[in-house]
Formats: sequence, C-alpha cells, structure tokens
Amino acid sequence: MAKDNFVENIADIEADFPQWYTDVCKKTGLVDYGPVKGTMVIRPYGYAIWENIQREMDARFKATGHKNAYFPMLIPMSFFTKEAEHVEGFAPEVAVVTHAGGEELAEPLAIRPTSETIIGNMYSKWLQSYRDLPILINQWANVMRWEKTTRPFLRTSEFLWQEGHTVHATEEEAMEETIKMLGVYKEFAENVLAIPVLCGRKTEKEKFAGAVATFGMEAMMKDGKSLQSGTSHYLGQNFSKAFDIKFLDKDGVQKYAYTTSWGTSTRMIGAVIMAHGDARGLVLPPKVAPEQAVIVPIAAKKGGVMEACQDIKTKLEKAGVRVVLDDTDNSPGWKFNEWEMKGVPVRIEVGPRDLEAGKVMLFRRDTLEKSECALGATVETVVSLLECVQRDMLESARARRDEKIVSANDAEGILSGVEAGNFVKAGWCGCRDCEDKIKEKTNATARVICDKLQHEVCAVCGKPAKHSVYFARAY
Amino acid sequence: MAKDNFVENIADIEADFPQWYTDVCKKTGLVDYGPVKGTMVIRPYGYAIWENIQREMDARFKATGHKNAYFPMLIPMSFFTKEAEHVEGFAPEVAVVTHAGGEELAEPLAIRPTSETIIGNMYSKWLQSYRDLPILINQWANVMRWEKTTRPFLRTSEFLWQEGHTVHATEEEAMEETIKMLGVYKEFAENVLAIPVLCGRKTEKEKFAGAVATFGMEAMMKDGKSLQSGTSHYLGQNFSKAFDIKFLDKDGVQKYAYTTSWGTSTRMIGAVIMAHGDARGLVLPPKVAPEQAVIVPIAAKKGGVMEACQDIKTKLEKAGVRVVLDDTDNSPGWKFNEWEMKGVPVRIEVGPRDLEAGKVMLFRRDTLEKSECALGATVETVVSLLECVQRDMLESARARRDEKIVSANDAEGILSGVEAGNFVKAGWCGCRDCEDKIKEKTNATARVICDKLQHEVCAVCGKPAKHSVYFARAY
Repeated sequence: MAKDNFVENIADIEADFPQWYTDVCKKTGLVDYGPVKGTMVIRPYGYAIWENIQREMDARFKATGHKNAYFPMLIPMSFFTKEAEHVEGFAPEVAVVTHAGGEELAEPLAIRPTSETIIGNMYSKWLQSYRDLPILINQWANVMRWEKTTRPFLRTSEFLWQEGHTVHATEEEAMEETIKMLGVYKEFAENVLAIPVLCGRKTEKEKFAGAVATFGMEAMMKDGKSLQSGTSHYLGQNFSKAFDIKFLDKDGVQKYAYTTSWGTSTRMIGAVIMAHGDARGLVLPPKVAPEQAVIVPIAAKKGGVMEACQDIKTKLEKAGVRVVLDDTDNSPGWKFNEWEMKGVPVRIEVGPRDLEAGKVMLFRRDTLEKSECALGATVETVVSLLECVQRDMLESARARRDEKIVSANDAEGILSGVEAGNFVKAGWCGCRDCEDKIKEKTNATARVICDKLQHEVCAVCGKPAKHSVYFARAY
Repeated sequence: MAKDNFVENIADIEADFPQWYTDVCKKTGLVDYGPVKGTMVIRPYGYAIWENIQREMDARFKATGHKNAYFPMLIPMSFFTKEAEHVEGFAPEVAVVTHAGGEELAEPLAIRPTSETIIGNMYSKWLQSYRDLPILINQWANVMRWEKTTRPFLRTSEFLWQEGHTVHATEEEAMEETIKMLGVYKEFAENVLAIPVLCGRKTEKEKFAGAVATFGMEAMMKDGKSLQSGTSHYLGQNFSKAFDIKFLDKDGVQKYAYTTSWGTSTRMIGAVIMAHGDARGLVLPPKVAPEQAVIVPIAAKKGGVMEACQDIKTKLEKAGVRVVLDDTDNSPGWKFNEWEMKGVPVRIEVGPRDLEAGKVMLFRRDTLEKSECALGATVETVVSLLECVQRDMLESARARRDEKIVSANDAEGILSGVEAGNFVKAGWCGCRDCEDKIKEKTNATARVICDKLQHEVCAVCGKPAKHSVYFARAY
C-alpha cells in the first residue's frame, strides 16, 4: 500500500532507534558518508537546516555585541603544549599536517580541534589596555577531531560549528559572559529548535580540557539518551597565562585577562532529528525546516488545480513562508509519504473537489492532524499554523522529557531509571570515584549538576550529597 | 596637524602602492598575519565585508537555482591522480595530513585546494538518471594552497571562498551554466563591489588545471595591475570520465555528464581595497561597508548634541542603514581621520551650532565632498546619498579603467603600455610561444581574450592575429 511506503524506507523507530536514525539521515537527503572514514557530506537538505540555524544564532550573537572573525585553521603543534590540560585532552584526536608545497614542514601543524590556542596567541598581540576590553568575537568554522566511532552529525572527524572567544578584565565579567551565552543557547534551543534543554555546570570529569568550569546544555532524545548540544566555558586565567593575554588596567598595573569560550555545532541537527522524529521520519520545527510547507496537487491535470497551487505558492512566498510545490509526476500518496519523511511541517492538499467547495486541506506533520481551510484564508491560516506547530513541538517535547525525569537514591535506582530511558536525578558526594562507579555500573554519566541540592546522600557511597546531578546515557 | 594624521598611518599611495596596501589592510583592522607563515587572520572589520559579500552573492546563487552543501575538507591523495592536468596543476601546492588520532594514516590526505575531485566522487554516487539533472550545488568553505609568496587577501595559504559545482546532461547546458555564472559574477562585481570588470575566455596557458575552457573576470587596480577576481570553468567530460559521473539518459543509454565549476574568494576584498582606496585609506562601496555611515558629535557635551546623534542613529537603523555613533573621547578631527581611513561611505557631523540652525553636515568619503542637510531630512538624504555613492563609485572606477585601456601593435607597445599602468589590447596569433615571449619581455600576461578580433597581426610574430587579448601585469 502506497500509504505505508515509509515503512520500507526507514527502520522501525521503536525496535531499532540507531538504524532508524541512520536511515532518516541518509534517506531524507540530509547527509551522506564521505570517502574518508568518519567524514560526512552535508547534502543540500541538511545544509539548509544548518543555514537556518546559523542565521538565527548569528543574529543572537550580534544582538549580544559579538562580531565574527576568521582565524587560521592550522595551528603550530607547540601551541597545544602551552596549556597542560588542553593538550592532554586534545592531542590524541588531532590531525597533523606534516608536508606542504612538496616539502616536509619544519614544525608539524595541527588542524584545529578548537581554537583557544591560536586565538589566544592573536589576542595577546591585540590586547593592550583596559580600553580594548571586552573582546567579543565569534567564529563560524570547520574543526577536526579524529574519532574512532563516528555517526553523521553526532560525531564525525570534521564538523562545522561556531566558537565564541571572549576576553574580559575581571573574573565576574567573564563568568557573566559564560552564563549569558549559555542562556542564549538555551533560548535558541527552545524557541528555534523546539527542544527543551537542561542547563547547568559540568562535573570536573566532564568539563572542557583547559577550562575552570564548563556549563552545558543537554537535550533528551526519543530513546531517553542525552545529547550534549552546546557548552560554555569559563576559562579563568588558564589561557591568558599560557598565551600571555595581558592588559594595562586603569590602575596602571599589567594584569592577565579572563577568557571564555562557547560552542555549538552541526550536532544540533542530530538533536533535531532525534528529539522530534517519529515512525514516518523527520519532524522539523518550522523555524529550521528548509521547506515550511509543501503544496500537493490532487488530480493535477484537472482544470484550475495547478493554477490554484501556483497562486497559493506565490502568496505564501510573499508572506515569507518557505514553500515548495511538488509538481512531479509521482502520485499524491507517494508525495505524502516523501514529504512526511522529510519532515515538512505543513502540507497543503489542493484537489478539484476541494476547490469547487472553496477550500483546501491542511495537514500538520507534528500531530498528523488534518483540517479544512477556506481557500481565501490559506495564507493566514498556514502562517498561524506554522507558529502553532513551532510552539506545540516545544511543549510536547517538554512534556515527553518531564515525564522521563526520575529521581533515585542509589546506583540500582540510577540503573533501572536509565534502562527505562529516563534522565535520573541523584545525589552525589562530589568525588570522582563515585562518578566513575556510576559510569561502570550503569553506563550513565553525569550530564549537568542541578541548580538545587535535592538529595541527602550520595547514591554511591552514602555520604552526604554535595550536589544533585542529572545522570543519563549519552551520545 | 590633526587633519593630516592619515599621512602618518599609511604609506603614500603614489610612491609605494604595495606598502600602502599592506598598511591599509593592517591599520584599518581588516586583517592580521597568523602565526604560521602565509596565513592570515580576518579581523572583524574585514570579516564583516566578507559577510556582506556572502549575503549578496548567496542570494544570487539561490535566485539562479543553486543550493548550498558541504563536502569534507580532506581528500584522498589518490583522487588527484585521476585527472591528469588537475594533479599537475595542484599537487605542488597541496598541504598533506599524514598523521591523525596518534597514528600514521594508511593513505595521506590532501587538504582541499579546490573540490572538483571529492565532489565528483560524490556526484558519481548520487547521479542515476537524467531526471536527477541538473545538479546545481555551491559550497562556502576554506581551501588551502601552499604559496611561496603571500599577501593578505590576494594570496594566502588558506583562504575562504565559494565553489559552485554543477552537472548537466549536455555540453550546451554546461556551457550555458558556465557563462551564466560568469555573468552573475560580473553583475555582482559591478553592482555590489562597484568594480567594472573585463570578462572573457582565458588562454590555454592561463586556464584552470583540468578545465576544457576557463572564463575569468579581471579588475583593474589603482596601480594599473589586474586582479583575477573570479573564474568560471567549463569542464566538459574531463571530471565525469575521471570520476565516473554517468546517467541513464531518456534514450536508455548510459552517458557521461558535463560538469562546470566556478569560484570567487576573499580575494575580492583585496580588489575592493585596491580598486577604490586613496591616500587616506579605504573607500568602501556602501553595499559591502560594515558601517555605511558614522555619526560624529562635535562638542559632544553641549546640550542636545548626543541626544540628536542618538536619535539620528535610531532612525537610520530603522531605515536599514548600518550606522555607528562614535561617542568615544577622541577629538572630532581624530575621528574624521579614523573613519575616513576605514572607508565609511558617509559621515554625519552633528554640532550645537548646526543643530541651532536645524541642520547637520554630511561628508561623502568617495568624493570628499561636504554638504548641508536639514536635520529633519537626514535619514532620507543619507539613504539616497548612499545609493548615489554606490553608483558614482562604479562610474568613476569605470572612467578610470577605460582611460587606461590602450591598444598596441607590437611587444614594445605592450611594454610601454603596461609600464604606464595600462591594460593593453593587442593581437595574438594563438600560439603559446608568443604568449610566453610577451611575459618574458613585459612581465604582462594574457588576462582575457576579447570578444571581438580588433587587430590584424600578432604583436610578437607578426602572423595573422587569431584573437585580440587584454594583456596586463597581474596580482
């Protein structure tokens, strides 16, 4: 049956979530594997989502006073050794250029896995006085981390991201920036990606190599696993001391500055897929959907149908809606399946009988609901329906997530919780040993520390709890 | 004298054009040198120009049916050997990754100098039938070509660019695309960068390694040298045969496709600097200027001045003008010099006496003219002045260029022409030997072939001319 075509295309989401993910990624034209192991090609449909993410996020960075710049991709290997924790964290993943222009290089060059070191080196040249502060710069770039196990969008050797790098005169200002950008990420995730996120500080074990403190946002995927979707790092004076980022303060004294960095990547596309997708495939939030509406003519050759479709398309485009008219030779049923798999938020069906009755049919992808709409009101109805879908997708993702946050008092509780696909809140004494034991026993990791202490004892050792922590299995 | 501060900042444009260029690049905050030889950091003021270029160009690509995608940066070295001319042209400039993740790689990987090979490899997987054609994809990316002599924006080991890669069923369609995109570039150069360009076919010697034919656009810099500012390549079946890009045609026969590629880069920022700049520094066309107008308060502490400045700023922003209010402690004279050096198209001076008289002063950077403007008409006057500046900059650049195109009948004429800073049109028999001799004798190269034959004999050998060619010294 044509209507069930999607079953042939993608694996059962309930039975095999990882295969479902891979199928959705590949069969909707989001991505393909590159010729080198661990690399991906972001195809036009996937890249259009990234462009929408970039546009929305870039506007937020600029509204908070940041400017974009571009730093070289190749970093002298010696830069990495200047910050001890940083090199330990990143050296094992680095790709190295040893030859160029037909010659062996005097010093091997790393392809940036992240740019704190090379940007720090430039900031030390640029920064003179307190008048130059704060420095608020963001970079959109490709980075490379050589990973053993890779999956499209989630973990590939090369990926696209943005990395903010800021410099401040005081600890307070730098910490304020760190928290502010975490807030920008959270607002973006909720209002653009329609993904509710848990934000908080990371444990020492999970923090960024070289940071004083890392704050992260975690998103729940439909299999109950967590996806780290953005991080904001307070770097203290670690990098300013390693790279000599100093300034002459108002009081005439030379001081080391305080720096931050924060980043999000094409991984967010993976978050969108796994937070919203269903048995039929992708479900895209209108704000990032490459096409927000698809018009499907029914009995296209009947008089007036194509003209009406074209007219609706023109009017929707004028109203700023990204819309496609599927005028191919495929059957309407085939088109329904195809565009549902591709996650287009709203479908407009235009048939001769509908037209005679002065109406069209609207279908919303998120709830699979159909409704009638007066032909003359199509544009305003679609525009408000898109707003409604955007809002409802966030709310239903939030409801799904809240239902799957449980609390536990011991390691067994954490294990049964995560095995049932939950995020589990539990008490933690704060020591690395107990954190490691939870990982061993449950394969769950500390995602973020809760703002408020809600447990009396550590779930592992039974000593007084210092923090409540969200534990989950994670991508 | 404060008014002449700019003389201290940048070298004399007449006496030392190369040093003037370097000074302008560095002292206006466009760019800085990276730590690795031959690399550049594009600073916020420079990157903002690139963002404006990207936005304008991307809209044109989309309007002509292209979509963006992203392909991996690392290319197996073996890919390069598949197209003989291509490997010969690019192998000497390639940077090579030999180690990654702590291990030596089985096959060394090239950092893309251009992406025909890796994109061709993917297209061969994606393309099945004539129904899949044309494939119209563009990529915004960084590329790397290891150059011996480097200069900011003009020639650096890493640079940012866009590369279009398209696939077509027939030779005619592919050639049509090649020419169409050259036209898009030309329209962009003229209407956005305000740079008149000469477009035409390149000689065999100057064409892209692997192309059947290359078409280029050449811009005249203020020193009379030419800057290749964009190229569009008809690749015929060279890459489709090397990478097996085939399709099942309507007639049921498997056929090799025809491909094109076309690119422009951050080099265009260099073109803007050298086509429009003057003794005071940058002169930016409004469409790419990071700030289109600067408001300078005179006697800022006098009642009402800052309020009036702020009010003008708010209104200009609402009208879509990119505007900055310089409310620093520096003197007005210092600010004038600074923003003139940075090439801001229009300056608005707001002083207490002007305000009393109900007016402001406007200064246009391109012609250095000042004019009065009624306070209440500031916004509309600035908006129309910006349009006027944009138009006039193109026209005066065109007049400058046309004055410096001369014709010659022999090699001596070419030599004296280029030494006087001209582009020289001359006849050419079409043989490589004569082209080489002109290079030897004059240090000028064939930039593009003229559309019409305008000479009877070759300037070198005196045999019948096959083409008229623009010769110039080039960057």
